[in-house]
Amino acid sequence: MPLRSAKDYVASLRDGRTVYFRGQRVEDVTTHPVIGVAVRHASIDYEMAEQPAHRALAVVADEDGREFSRYYQIPRASDDLLQRSALIETATAAGATLVVLIKEIGTDALVALMRVASVVDAARRTEYARRVEAFYQHCRSKDLAVAVAQTDVKGDRALGPSAQADPDLYLHIVERRSDGIVVRGAKAHTSVSTNANELIVLPTRAMGEADRDYAVSFAVPVATKGLILLASAYDSTGPQSHAAEHPISARHKMMETTTVFDNVFVPWERVFLAGEHEFAGPLALAFVEHHRFTAVSYKLPLVDALIGSAMLMADLNGVAKAGHVREKIVQLISYGETLRGLTHYAALRATPRELGIAVPDPLYVNMAKYHFAHGYHEAVRNVQDIAGGSLVTGPGAEDLVSAETAPYYERYYAGRAGISGKDRLKALSVVKDLVASEFATYQEVLAVHAEGSLEAEKLMLFRSYDPKPALTFVRGLAGLL
Amino acid sequence: MPLRSAKDYVASLRDGRTVYFRGQRVEDVTTHPVIGVAVRHASIDYEMAEQPAHRALAVVADEDGREFSRYYQIPRASDDLLQRSALIETATAAGATLVVLIKEIGTDALVALMRVASVVDAARRTEYARRVEAFYQHCRSKDLAVAVAQTDVKGDRALGPSAQADPDLYLHIVERRSDGIVVRGAKAHTSVSTNANELIVLPTRAMGEADRDYAVSFAVPVATKGLILLASAYDSTGPQSHAAEHPISARHKMMETTTVFDNVFVPWERVFLAGEHEFAGPLALAFVEHHRFTAVSYKLPLVDALIGSAMLMADLNGVAKAGHVREKIVQLISYGETLRGLTHYAALRATPRELGIAVPDPLYVNMAKYHFAHGYHEAVRNVQDIAGGSLVTGPGAEDLVSAETAPYYERYYAGRAGISGKDRLKALSVVKDLVASEFATYQEVLAVHAEGSLEAEKLMLFRSYDPKPALTFVRGLAGLL
Amino acid sequence: MPLRSAKDYVASLRDGRTVYFRGQRVEDVTTHPVIGVAVRHASIDYEMAEQPAHRALAVVADEDGREFSRYYQIPRASDDLLQRSALIETATAAGATLVVLIKEIGTDALVALMRVASVVDAARRTEYARRVEAFYQHCRSKDLAVAVAQTDVKGDRALGPSAQADPDLYLHIVERRSDGIVVRGAKAHTSVSTNANELIVLPTRAMGEADRDYAVSFAVPVATKGLILLASAYDSTGPQSHAAEHPISARHKMMETTTVFDNVFVPWERVFLAGEHEFAGPLALAFVEHHRFTAVSYKLPLVDALIGSAMLMADLNGVAKAGHVREKIVQLISYGETLRGLTHYAALRATPRELGIAVPDPLYVNMAKYHFAHGYHEAVRNVQDIAGGSLVTGPGAEDLVSAETAPYYERYYAGRAGISGKDRLKALSVVKDLVASEFATYQEVLAVHAEGSLEAEKLMLFRSYDPKPALTFVRGLAGLL
Amino acid sequence: MPLRSAKDYVASLRDGRTVYFRGQRVEDVTTHPVIGVAVRHASIDYEMAEQPAHRALAVVADEDGREFSRYYQIPRASDDLLQRSALIETATAAGATLVVLIKEIGTDALVALMRVASVVDAARRTEYARRVEAFYQHCRSKDLAVAVAQTDVKGDRALGPSAQADPDLYLHIVERRSDGIVVRGAKAHTSVSTNANELIVLPTRAMGEADRDYAVSFAVPVATKGLILLASAYDSTGPQSHAAEHPISARHKMMETTTVFDNVFVPWERVFLAGEHEFAGPLALAFVEHHRFTAVSYKLPLVDALIGSAMLMADLNGVAKAGHVREKIVQLISYGETLRGLTHYAALRATPRELGIAVPDPLYVNMAKYHFAHGYHEAVRNVQDIAGGSLVTGPGAEDLVSAETAPYYERYYAGRAGISGKDRLKALSVVKDLVASEFATYQEVLAVHAEGSLEAEKLMLFRSYDPKPALTFVRGLAGLL
Repeated sequence: MPLRSAKDYVASLRDGRTVYFRGQRVEDVTTHPVIGVAVRHASIDYEMAEQPAHRALAVVADEDGREFSRYYQIPRASDDLLQRSALIETATAAGATLVVLIKEIGTDALVALMRVASVVDAARRTEYARRVEAFYQHCRSKDLAVAVAQTDVKGDRALGPSAQADPDLYLHIVERRSDGIVVRGAKAHTSVSTNANELIVLPTRAMGEADRDYAVSFAVPVATKGLILLASAYDSTGPQSHAAEHPISARHKMMETTTVFDNVFVPWERVFLAGEHEFAGPLALAFVEHHRFTAVSYKLPLVDALIGSAMLMADLNGVAKAGHVREKIVQLISYGETLRGLTHYAALRATPRELGIAVPDPLYVNMAKYHFAHGYHEAVRNVQDIAGGSLVTGPGAEDLVSAETAPYYERYYAGRAGISGKDRLKALSVVKDLVASEFATYQEVLAVHAEGSLEAEKLMLFRSYDPKPALTFVRGLAGLL
Repeated sequence: MPLRSAKDYVASLRDGRTVYFRGQRVEDVTTHPVIGVAVRHASIDYEMAEQPAHRALAVVADEDGREFSRYYQIPRASDDLLQRSALIETATAAGATLVVLIKEIGTDALVALMRVASVVDAARRTEYARRVEAFYQHCRSKDLAVAVAQTDVKGDRALGPSAQADPDLYLHIVERRSDGIVVRGAKAHTSVSTNANELIVLPTRAMGEADRDYAVSFAVPVATKGLILLASAYDSTGPQSHAAEHPISARHKMMETTTVFDNVFVPWERVFLAGEHEFAGPLALAFVEHHRFTAVSYKLPLVDALIGSAMLMADLNGVAKAGHVREKIVQLISYGETLRGLTHYAALRATPRELGIAVPDPLYVNMAKYHFAHGYHEAVRNVQDIAGGSLVTGPGAEDLVSAETAPYYERYYAGRAGISGKDRLKALSVVKDLVASEFATYQEVLAVHAEGSLEAEKLMLFRSYDPKPALTFVRGLAGLL
Repeated sequence: MPLRSAKDYVASLRDGRTVYFRGQRVEDVTTHPVIGVAVRHASIDYEMAEQPAHRALAVVADEDGREFSRYYQIPRASDDLLQRSALIETATAAGATLVVLIKEIGTDALVALMRVASVVDAARRTEYARRVEAFYQHCRSKDLAVAVAQTDVKGDRALGPSAQADPDLYLHIVERRSDGIVVRGAKAHTSVSTNANELIVLPTRAMGEADRDYAVSFAVPVATKGLILLASAYDSTGPQSHAAEHPISARHKMMETTTVFDNVFVPWERVFLAGEHEFAGPLALAFVEHHRFTAVSYKLPLVDALIGSAMLMADLNGVAKAGHVREKIVQLISYGETLRGLTHYAALRATPRELGIAVPDPLYVNMAKYHFAHGYHEAVRNVQDIAGGSLVTGPGAEDLVSAETAPYYERYYAGRAGISGKDRLKALSVVKDLVASEFATYQEVLAVHAEGSLEAEKLMLFRSYDPKPALTFVRGLAGLL
Repeated sequence: MPLRSAKDYVASLRDGRTVYFRGQRVEDVTTHPVIGVAVRHASIDYEMAEQPAHRALAVVADEDGREFSRYYQIPRASDDLLQRSALIETATAAGATLVVLIKEIGTDALVALMRVASVVDAARRTEYARRVEAFYQHCRSKDLAVAVAQTDVKGDRALGPSAQADPDLYLHIVERRSDGIVVRGAKAHTSVSTNANELIVLPTRAMGEADRDYAVSFAVPVATKGLILLASAYDSTGPQSHAAEHPISARHKMMETTTVFDNVFVPWERVFLAGEHEFAGPLALAFVEHHRFTAVSYKLPLVDALIGSAMLMADLNGVAKAGHVREKIVQLISYGETLRGLTHYAALRATPRELGIAVPDPLYVNMAKYHFAHGYHEAVRNVQDIAGGSLVTGPGAEDLVSAETAPYYERYYAGRAGISGKDRLKALSVVKDLVASEFATYQEVLAVHAEGSLEAEKLMLFRSYDPKPALTFVRGLAGLL
């Protein structure tokens, strides 16, 4: 079976799924003025597989010569991870700094499920591994787009699932039937769900005995009965704006949903965890081990864009040689390239885990992610600083075509000798979209929260560190061995 | 003559001024869907003078008992500056963190003009002081709204005014006539000009002999022939949005313009500097000495709102006692209150300068401003961190009234016990407007650029510091006196 | 009774006190090669009272015209606190950045005892206030040097006093007799005890019912039976070094002791708390409220010295105009002057508390202290950066007088034109003592630990902040009032 | 010829070299109370080659089976660099965080000379390459210890060599003879020169036409006539102290000299650059390209020791689980491991340059070095914070053996249950030596200045960055390609 075309992918989304946007049911996500932008953005993944320049990176073949998307390749060694990282980075650059994610996140969940299912089966004589494998083959052979719902809506963040005032604030099993389970609750921040084919559900945290019914993992087609996608209203302006004004966000969009499970039935064949509470934590963790590596890979075009923005604006404004500008650019380079170095080094230090699946070194992945997240706002400040106040006081798209205003803007927004106002305004528009727009704060909040918070990264960094060498060294110096 | 009412103020703006917004001429700024929001926001100043709670702060009387706006009071001592600071802080809080500015900035320019005019007159036998005084009495007695245009569009930032490829990239005198001067060029980032009555023009930097024609200062009514206001298109979404979605920016707006002077004639009576190039720098500096004190005063409600946002969201989310949340709140408090302390201390250390005008200690003002500007993005990150990812994945205004979606949002956005989804969403909307919206990045860019860049603040801080005590102390310790 | 002379002060220390230094009993602290330096440093306080330049600051008179040291003046208003701060700053500058402390800390303890004794007496019908007042009059009229022992040795820092494996790890009452109490245990880090006349003991933390016997406060002469002072061996090199090599630490020294109470008897007249455990916390806190203000006051000459060092070395090395050097000096100025501003502002915002005693605003005091402590190492790095590697590769005192080596050093350590090697080496010696010596790390550790740790400062900062205004502001914006 | 023994190495230093310490001629460096410690420390390199555990790492063989020190292996690929880095790290750990350096720095200079000599020869028909190769074989076959003198004393840092008031402030050729050259001047901060066999001299910076005579490179035996080593007096206490008090610095020492060339004659065979001024910059740069990689490799045990110190003291003090302690340990781990990751990644990205010599990626090397240097003081602060104030108020070595004081210290310095005062004091001594001693500030200053300043690292980082990808990406987004 050949890989799907972008056209087929788009067509597959017209399946009667239940999506709401700003209070109204969306009949066809592919033609919706906002969600349609997200669909076209997601198509990048299918288009890359068809482009000669990217085919070698995007497509691999199995031993029988059957081609499939490289995203679906199970990583066995550092090089697989580096290739995967390169693919994610390339696709995100094609997405103008915005990750595509419709296969990235799903395959992170699939390898996590493979790893943990093998452990649960061994401990409990369950048959989860077979089901996961079957679902994996289904997705890979049909070249599907897959979303993942993990974070519950959570209510009181200081309390666990079963301790909430409302039992539905974490997703849970409300009925076990002979043919499957029925689940209820809601997941927050589910990315790309409006334009995925399948939705994988994972537990959000470690759970105790009392949380048994909350220890649940499964997969359902998006157009499943009772599955309700409440699309985010955030930044609905960008996608409906002129590309001249929002060169990135008018064309690229990721859509999140609050994902409601209103008594959704899941057949056993699609259930991957159902009550084995002590494996909820390991499954959540295994997903994160892969997904944070995806995260640091897809942040690379964004940090490159910040560096490039600062250098470009410094040049156009004629201040490239000013000492303080140089200093800020050095800070940006150091910020961006440290991310790249730690990311690649994490892949190079990968170790094989369950089923021989290669896992990037979690210490370095989490250091990379924390480095990115902690420094992002300062990087943005440096770009805003170099770009200048015109980021927020300049013209709109219409100003640049109006006979009455365009001549003034073209003249008075000129930069250093040789730089026309027109060109400088084009550069300003991109930089504005990156660091001074609703899309810009979307990126800020993603930096802090997506794929785990700063605190989650620090905790995992701490746990991944082997304290013995350093402690033994100091104890030895002190004569305390 | 009594103070103007808000109604009179609004009416005064219907005067045939030349304003463009998104390529189209604006017939009436007061009814325009975007600029009208800025007009209503500016009216806060006139409303406060009528409110019993604020009247004592907002209005003062001269020795003859004639009342006038406190903004027009010439500061003679620390207490005048503290009262002015309190008025600015109170008005900005009424503006929901957005400064009103229609009198703040104009009076900063007026006292600077008074100070420098007295010096120029003494050196050059000019009669600028008398003209400035007359213009001041005109503005004060008519209770006018006054904008200030200072920053030129600048072209190559590494070159001075007369060295630019296009001579009009800095505003300059193109003709000296018996009755006045004719000027041409453009100023960038002119705040509140669309809704001011008068526009004061100041030079943007120190100038040399070759820049004589660029050393120009004057005032004109906004509805002057040849004066063209190109309104910024930035964040035109917020003002046209629902207040439920953008509780601040749907109601509050500051409008900047690219301000074009297309051969504008200025009568001599309104000219305050015309060729005395060695006073361009002192005038620019004097303005900044007063205006940065205004700046740090009006930032106080914004930093309070960040602290309050973090505390409120921590409480609603049930994490107020978590160690890392506490740590971030401490950082926010320290950030905000250090600003307050340095601001007030600068006023307390004020010294009298030309004409006995009290000038806040520039060392402390610039430290306060730099502290604010340098730390703003980190403060925003801390608020985003505590508020959570729902900042960018939540509902729109319509979702909260739709029968199909509202019940889900109300249920699943609940916080800790006792906190309904409805209330938590209200809080999230305000916090989103503050730290995750186009308005939010407007505040970020203003932090970095308004009233002078980080580098400008550092330079002035350095120059304001008296190195003698510290140097003498160390030299003494070294036996090098 | 006149104020004591420095000579009388020194003589008063020859009283048979039990002091050990490097394992040996010290017969006379005043002639000891290390502790003697601390004694001479402490004499600064008595010398200032005799110097015309400082007398007005150092000495005040009561209503009957009797003169006493200003340190003993009970603060009643902001101005008293500002004068006290100025005295501490001046004395510390005379101490070449090292605080004198022999009256500063004792009077901080005395006002804290006055405040809390009045509360305990009211609640428990005790007579502590009278005893404290009598002891205060004793110290003041005799112009005594007073040390304070507060921090217990503590053992397991995660456990309270009565929960320790060894009950003596916190000082406690082991016997209550008709004529007084007997105490046992040890206090750590007791400053200036070797050269004080009296020692005040305060509880180190809040205590519970089980800790009753640990809730103890009293004062004893240093030469009391059973009181054993184990002098710190730290930085015993500096005081025994050449002043040419260690211009500060060869002449100035503060001595700490591990202070052992080996069944020390205290008569009731000198007991200020004995079992009233709920007042241990308030007493510890009251002391800190005054003592941290002392701390931020005495840090001012140190930060001035850092600023001056950077400016001086930049000048001598010929790099005063380099952009990065300017930047680092700006950071140092901002660091130092923010400390000064917050310190003075804290005094200006003082409020009267028990007995009308003026307490500096704890929010600002703690922000000042935290600002100092958190930024100190970065400030040191900036000074080391500008001063250059010669800090740690240069000559010793003997090299500069040896006929064989001095000529080389004088020639090759020359700075910019006009700066001889001799003079540059003098400057380098002072800067080395400040930022690259055992004395330098003493200052680093003091920055972090003295008068409370960074965490203690953050906690008190948090508790001193009134959250209502900010919370109400944000709730109002959200419609949640 | 076999590798030298440590004994032979020590013996080789008794060669009549001219060394002064504190103004006096040192007859025998190997028995000197301070320099002797440096000699024994340097012996680690020779000892490792004899130890079974380290032999495989420390020794390699050429194609003829002749063994030589791995330091002398010319790197041809990433793996050579990783092995070299591992050797440096291991030796420095054996040196208790202090680099050995007697072969590290010399071989960095040798490969730089090889690379640049080949370029100079090609351009100028010189025969430098042959001479360098001969000198290399001499050093390698005799297993010599080699120091490098690069940094001139410099006088006015804003002026170049030939612009100084005194022409000798940079080392220069004063005579060209048929058999060689005569040089005069002085180099600062020459490490390990007192205990090296040979001294290589390199130019310190790029030079212009006027600086021809300053563009000089050569090698001489340390015991050369006119070569005068003025040993640093810095931290001469540690090496003469008790190991119980300074467990590191009593046993380990690196000695720097101000190295005076008083008309030193160098035969042509040992001259590697003499007037070819345009190659002074490239040679200085090539050295730094290798030497900064050495630097980041040898910093690894130091950062490990900081992490280990914090973890150990947190454990002994009973506060390992406190939130703020955890946070500081996470910061330390992230700091240290980012250095390790960037260092190794720089080796993995090495590229072959002149003669196929592998050069570590300078972008990553400089980012690693800057990361280390910029963050070092904050790391020290975190360790001081966790270790506690006892770092500077505790006992000396004699206190722990005195019958009168030891019992008190052993009792009152106990830590959490099970941790005796004796053991806690041992740990405190090591941590004190690392972060609160003259040795500690030596490490601070080295962090900032050794192998190039922070500014030098930033400059090289900036120049090593390829701006094209990021610029092209942003230009593409803006439609400006």
